Formats: sequence, C-alpha cells, structure tokens
Amino acid sequence: MLRDFAKPTKPEKDEIKQRMETEQAKLAANQMRIKEAKVPVMVIFEGWGAAGKGSVLSRVIKEMDPRFFQVATMDARPTEEEQRRPFLWRYMVEIPEEGQFKFFDTCWMEEVTGGVLSGQLDQEAFDKRVDSINMAERQLVDNGYLVMKFFFQIGKSEQRRRLDALAADHNTSWRVDDEDIWQNDHYDQCLAVYDRYLRDTNRSSAPWYIIDAKDRSWATLQVLEFLNVGIDIAIRNRGYEAPIRQNVFPLRRMPLLADIPLDKTIDETEYHVQLKALQARLGELHNELYRKRIPVVIAYEGWDAAGKGGNIKRITAALDPRGYRVHPIASPEPHEKARHYLWRFWNRLPKSGHIAIFDRTWYGRVMVERLEGFCSENDWQRAYNEMNEFEKELVDAGTVVIKFWVQIDSDTQLARFTDRQNTPEKQWKITEEDWRNREKWDQYEAAVNEMLRKTSTTFAPWHVLESNDKRYARIKALRIVVDALEQACAER
Amino acid sequence: MLRDFAKPTKPEKDEIKQRMETEQAKLAANQMRIKEAKVPVMVIFEGWGAAGKGSVLSRVIKEMDPRFFQVATMDARPTEEEQRRPFLWRYMVEIPEEGQFKFFDTCWMEEVTGGVLSGQLDQEAFDKRVDSINMAERQLVDNGYLVMKFFFQIGKSEQRRRLDALAADHNTSWRVDDEDIWQNDHYDQCLAVYDRYLRDTNRSSAPWYIIDAKDRSWATLQVLEFLNVGIDIAIRNRGYEAPIRQNVFPLRRMPLLADIPLDKTIDETEYHVQLKALQARLGELHNELYRKRIPVVIAYEGWDAAGKGGNIKRITAALDPRGYRVHPIASPEPHEKARHYLWRFWNRLPKSGHIAIFDRTWYGRVMVERLEGFCSENDWQRAYNEMNEFEKELVDAGTVVIKFWVQIDSDTQLARFTDRQNTPEKQWKITEEDWRNREKWDQYEAAVNEMLRKTSTTFAPWHVLESNDKRYARIKALRIVVDALEQACAER
Repeated sequence: MLRDFAKPTKPEKDEIKQRMETEQAKLAANQMRIKEAKVPVMVIFEGWGAAGKGSVLSRVIKEMDPRFFQVATMDARPTEEEQRRPFLWRYMVEIPEEGQFKFFDTCWMEEVTGGVLSGQLDQEAFDKRVDSINMAERQLVDNGYLVMKFFFQIGKSEQRRRLDALAADHNTSWRVDDEDIWQNDHYDQCLAVYDRYLRDTNRSSAPWYIIDAKDRSWATLQVLEFLNVGIDIAIRNRGYEAPIRQNVFPLRRMPLLADIPLDKTIDETEYHVQLKALQARLGELHNELYRKRIPVVIAYEGWDAAGKGGNIKRITAALDPRGYRVHPIASPEPHEKARHYLWRFWNRLPKSGHIAIFDRTWYGRVMVERLEGFCSENDWQRAYNEMNEFEKELVDAGTVVIKFWVQIDSDTQLARFTDRQNTPEKQWKITEEDWRNREKWDQYEAAVNEMLRKTSTTFAPWHVLESNDKRYARIKALRIVVDALEQACAER
Repeated sequence: MLRDFAKPTKPEKDEIKQRMETEQAKLAANQMRIKEAKVPVMVIFEGWGAAGKGSVLSRVIKEMDPRFFQVATMDARPTEEEQRRPFLWRYMVEIPEEGQFKFFDTCWMEEVTGGVLSGQLDQEAFDKRVDSINMAERQLVDNGYLVMKFFFQIGKSEQRRRLDALAADHNTSWRVDDEDIWQNDHYDQCLAVYDRYLRDTNRSSAPWYIIDAKDRSWATLQVLEFLNVGIDIAIRNRGYEAPIRQNVFPLRRMPLLADIPLDKTIDETEYHVQLKALQARLGELHNELYRKRIPVVIAYEGWDAAGKGGNIKRITAALDPRGYRVHPIASPEPHEKARHYLWRFWNRLPKSGHIAIFDRTWYGRVMVERLEGFCSENDWQRAYNEMNEFEKELVDAGTVVIKFWVQIDSDTQLARFTDRQNTPEKQWKITEEDWRNREKWDQYEAAVNEMLRKTSTTFAPWHVLESNDKRYARIKALRIVVDALEQACAER
C-alpha cells in the first residue's frame, strides 16, 4: 500500500486555505453531531518519525471543543505492568466513550511493527497480533465506534532533512531519538514492514488513509477531509443494524456533475481528422493487445440520450469484430436476479486479448436499483465497496478497466427526447420510462455524484465525457481508450 | 488450525446412526426451507486426497431432492480458456441461484494451495489470492448466500493406508494419482500450507469446519450437523439487514440444561476431607502460578440462588488475598455503558500471576441484556463470536480461562428463595428482581442453552456445576480449577 501509494495532487496554497476553512468549520459542527448521535470516535495517527503527526494533530484539534476530545500518547514502550496483560489491553482500556473523540498518537501499529523491526516478533507472532488488531477494530466498529486510521507518509530524504533540522536546533534536538535515526538508515526495511502491516489491516470496517505528509497544511487538510467523511458515515451507520462496510481503496477526487462545464465543442473538420487518426491507432492497438493477451473492459454509464450508443460505435468501428463484444445491459433476467448481482458481469468478462464493452453496467446497483428500491439501502451502500473490489480483481488479473460517465445537461436531454419523439425513425429510442426517469433527474444526479465520488479508484477511475457536443465526447473517449491501451501495451 | 485440531469425541455406532437419521430428516426439511426462503447455498468440500470427500458427499445428498441441488466438480486444473480470465472466474460463474444447493467438490482452496505446493505461487501471489477469496466469500454472504466450508482431515498413515488399498484394487486404482502420492510423501509440507490457508480464510462470514474424516459415517454426521446449523443461521439472517458474523472457533458439544442430572450429591464427611485436600493443593498452585506469572480468569454464571457466592468463597479461601480479586458484576455504570460492552472486563483483567474471579460476567450480553432488550438482536447475536474472540485473546496471552455455569432446577430455586424470604439475616439476598427473573425461567433457560452451545470453545469450555447439592458443586469447581492450574503450571 505504501509502495504503490499514488500521491494525490496537491492543490494550490489558496485552495488549501479555502478548503481548510470549510473543513475546520465542518469538524466543529461534526463534533456536536457526534456528541448528539453518541458515537465514540477513535482517531489513530501512525507514520514515520518526524512525519509531523504531532503538529498536524494540533492543527486538527484547533477548532474543537476541548471538553469532548482527549489525546492518548501511546508511543512509549509498554511498561512492565502493561506487559503483564494481553497485548491489546493498554489500548482497549483507553477507548473513548460515546460522543467523545480520542486521538491516539500512535497505537497498536507502532508497537507491532516496532516489534518486527527489532526482531522481537517473528512472522507467526506478527500474524497473530494482526489478527488481534483486526478483531479489535472490527468489534469496535460493529459496536458503534468510528475508527479512523491515518498513516503519515514521507520519503527517505525528506525524513532525513527533517531529522537533521530538528537535531540542529537545541530546542528540538530532544525530539530526535536513536530510533528515528535507525528508521531513516533502514528506511526500505521499515517500508516493507509498514506496507505489510497496512495491507493486512486495511479492512472494510476500518480502512487506512495514507496521508501525503510532506506539507503540513496539505497533510492537515487531507486528515480533516477524510475525518469529516468518516463522521458522516458513522452517523449514518447509527441508523443501521450493522455498519456498512467501507471502501478500502484509495480514491481520486471527482468534481460534482454540476461543476463540469459542458460548453466544450469540436470543429467538424477537426473532428473527422482526429476521429480517423485515433481509430487507426486503436485498430493497431487492438492487434497488439490481442498478441499480448491483455483483456479490456470499457464501461459506459450516462444519462438517457447522452450519446452512449454513438460513442460506442466510434470505438467498435476501429476494432476487429472477432476481438470484442458489446454487452447491452437491461434489467436482469430471472436466473440472473436469483444470484449475486455481479454474477451476470462475471459471466460476461472478456478473456485475455479481448475487449468487452458494457452499455450500462454493474453501477445500476447504485443508480436505478437504489432509486427504484430494487435493493435495500444496506445493499446499495455496501455495493460501492463491492464494485471497487470487483474491478480490483479485474485489474489484478491484468485487465484494463476504463469507465465513462457520459454527461449532458437536462436541457440537452429534453431537446434530444423531443427530437426522438418527433422523428419517426428515432421513435423506438424513446419510451415512457425515459420520461419517468427524467422526472427524477435530481435524485439521479445526487446518486451519480455519490457513485463517482465513491468508486473512482486510482486503478479504475471514472472519466467524464462532456457530451452536449457528441463529437467532442467521442474524440475524448477514443483518446482515453488509446492512451490507456498504449500504456498497457508498453508495460507488458 | 489443522495442527492444533482437537478431534471431537467420536460417539458410539448406535448414537451415530440415531443422530444421522435425525440430521438426514432435518436436511430434507431444510432443503424446502431454503427453497422457500430463497437462500442460495454453496457447500465447499476440501481436504486431503482419499479423505472421502466423494463418498461423504453421496451420503449427504442421499435424502435430498435432486431438483434443488447440483454438484460442481472443480478439481481439474483450470483449462486454457479459464486461465484467460481472473482466477475467481471459473468459480464465480458456478455459484448457485437462490433456493438451490451447489456442492463444490474442491474449490478455490485446492487451486491455491496446489499452486503454492507446486511452486507456481509465491508468498505474495498466495496472499493476493487469499484476499480475493476472502472478498468473494464475504460478498456472497453479504448478499444472502450461505457458504459452508468443510475440510476433510486424515492423518498421514491413514492416508497412506487408503491410497494403498485403492491402488491394490483394479476397480479403484485409477482414483489414485501421482498428486495423491506426492501429497502423502510430503504430508508435513502440505499440512503447513493447508494450515496457513485455513487460518487466513477462517472468517466470521464463512468459517471453516474441520471434519475428522477417519470414519465415513462419523464424517457424514459431522457435515450434516454443521450444515443444518448453518442453514438455520442463514435463514435467520434473511431477516437482518446484514448477516450476523459467525463464530470462527471450534466448539465443544454441550448438553441441554434439561438433560443434566441434578441428583449428584456428596457425603458430608467426604466433602470436608476433599475440600481440605483440594484447598491445600490450590494454595500451593497459587504460589506456583504467581512465580510462573500465569494469569487466571475464573468466570461464574448461574441461576439466582444457585450458590455462586458460596462456591467462590471455597475457592478464595485457599488463595493468598494479595494475589486474587473477586469482581462482582452488576449493571454497568454510565461511563461503562458509554463504551464497548467488553470494556469493563478489559479493565478488570488480571495481570500475570494473578487470579480474577468474576461473579457474573460478559455473558450478561446474551442473557439479561438479550432478554430485557438492553441491546439489539444483532448486538447479542454477534456477541457470541465477540466473546469467543475476547477469551481467545486472553488464552493466547497465556491466561487460564475457566467458565462455570452453576446449575439448579426451578424447584430448588423456589425453595432457596422462600428460605431467604423467611430468614431475617438472609433477606438482603432476595429482591423483587429475583422474583421477576424467576418468572422468565424458560426464556433464560433457552438463552443459556444457546450460550453454552455457542461459546463452549475448545480453549475456554464451559463447565456445568450441578448445584442442587451445593457441596457437590464446590468440590467439582475446586477440582476443575486445580486440574486446570496443574496443567498450566506443568506446561510452562
């Protein structure tokens, strides 16, 4: 998890400042919501020595009401008294009570990874501790706790720089201990142990959030944003018998649909030039990926009349028909409905070297099935993580996964619907259901925003195709596909 | 899990036959319940070559309606076609539909452990597969599936004996392949890999059931009993938003309270002789465990007026008061209620070398809290596993955990209540609440039976103390404690 940590793009200073203010205010409000909803909140800070856990912590709590939070400093070695109890004991007695925040300045991770690095814990003992920790975290969450885990990540040279700076100042030199130096000298060894620990404890009851900690303000903002999202989830979970399992994969930040400008167009001549070039390239790539046995999944979602069909056509026009398949996805058949909702997609997975294009996808779970009540709230809430896991399986098996959201505005949809209605040869394309769905535009938009936010993983991100100008959308789609396939072909 | 597999006690032939008939009939009925409740059931058979998976399977399905089950034979190597999809694919496309049973004659375990043993999968690839499998099993269960996993265990020499017998008969010799021979020659190496796999995939959504497969009938009975319990759980889970997490630890078979004879008594002279001897021995052991730093937890539960207090007194009378503590457990205080329900017990754990005696315990969760509605059904259903996990932590940290259920019959309780009522110096011992609880005797009895059945783990089994004769119960308790401590002292 650390080794392949994809740093999020750091925003400009002004943006950080602005977002920070929003999040600080939100946290202050959330503190009261937590108190009211009686949720106990356990926030765990782990990470490299000198990564700035302490200073970020003081920024995070700045606007909080000190009556409702505490800080537990756990980084000292367990005392002789503590060692006479089960390993978890010194942490379990510290858990917060309902309505309260407790910030753990390092927790069980530090003790366990330290134990491995010092040679006190062998692999078997480590595995056992990991089991205990997973058990404890799951039990806490099952019993209404919010457990937020942050790992503060800095590179080797950055750590060295900080340690040198601390050591050089006689006011701060006491903060550098032998362990920090040792850690820096054995950075790669530590990284491997941390990575293993993070991977083994990254569970859907309490996922890890890796913080890019090079810049203090940026680190603080990341923590605040994750924390506020976590609080929303925990408060929502109060309404359920059992907490919803959370996404365990790093996500890309997605814009709201309403914030996406739809005035992008392309000149017609230019369109044809680019179309031809891109399709030619795609055709070549299709051969290459067939040879290299790379499977490809292209998933289309979007508004009715957004232009999915025409877009797909421009892709397939470039492909050898023996090497791809388009799957139009309608309501599930009875034998499909009788199984796990992803089963019909498992069944349609391409074999290596082939392309499967889905015209509508598994994301129906969190759109139509959610909004029409075809599944329970628990079902669709849990589905975000399940679909991320499904796509991770595909990616891990070498599949290139490309997901498109084809976006238009409501007026454009109305114009296209009316045109379809009024053009005899297009009338088959428009049904009563389309009009009914259109009435729920706002609900769908909220659902889509949530979907994009929760399922745009680093390994299978969403791409929005601005399709008020369909030609613009087609060129953009082709370019994204070509780029993705070029990259995949280059890597194998 | 395999290495420390404690074989269940094999019953006599007659008992096996009798229980088998009961379970076969139950399974036939359960098949209809499954159909009605629309639960898809996935039954996975894994285990050693020649362990009898096939023959047990044919016995299990003997009474089933063939329209509602299928068998998937997955033990062939993945074909070239299958290898061109993600590893899980060939299994996922086989999952049953609702209301149907599908028996998998080996499943993903066989492929993955085989991959490790043949050197095709390294540790990292193995870990990844394990993640995928855990994900798949969890997703299936979350989406309403019952997933039952059986591992058929036989010893090395038993396997050799069977392989030789199969090979010697020309009708069966085709069933012995090189892989089976290889497995037997490398039994310990295989055992280590299987053990690791079972441990890593023994999750609360789909725990493993290890089957002692030396005797076919006995193996069949074990499978049937586990399967029928699993079906009950799955049908119950249909009523919940999210399935209840299951116990992942092997259990001891417990008798129903109603089946426990309560006529056991001890002669008064004999009582005093034994009491003196046992207390003397316990005193010695207390010193020894103090020296060896062994922590001890003794947990008492039982009916009101069953004689818990007097029983505890006979234990503590033998102990050095500096080395033990009795914790009477009443309703939680507000600051306790505001935390995870096990917190107040974590807080009262003994340090090494000390004894903590709990007069009533964490099991209140599944008795009074369950029956008085102080927690949700989901809470107490989940608690069985949580409490087993809690005790496992203690045992893994070297704690000796001894659990007593102090049993009397209803008449005896009435007599003791009346006596307390009529004896001025005992009146403090009897309250209105005791009478109210007594009215719920039957509900409590059902709850206690469920508790004993679900929490009598091999590492922390329940001991029933027949306490109509309090003296008998005291001697029995002392003897159990002395035996347990002697064993623990001998082992360290």
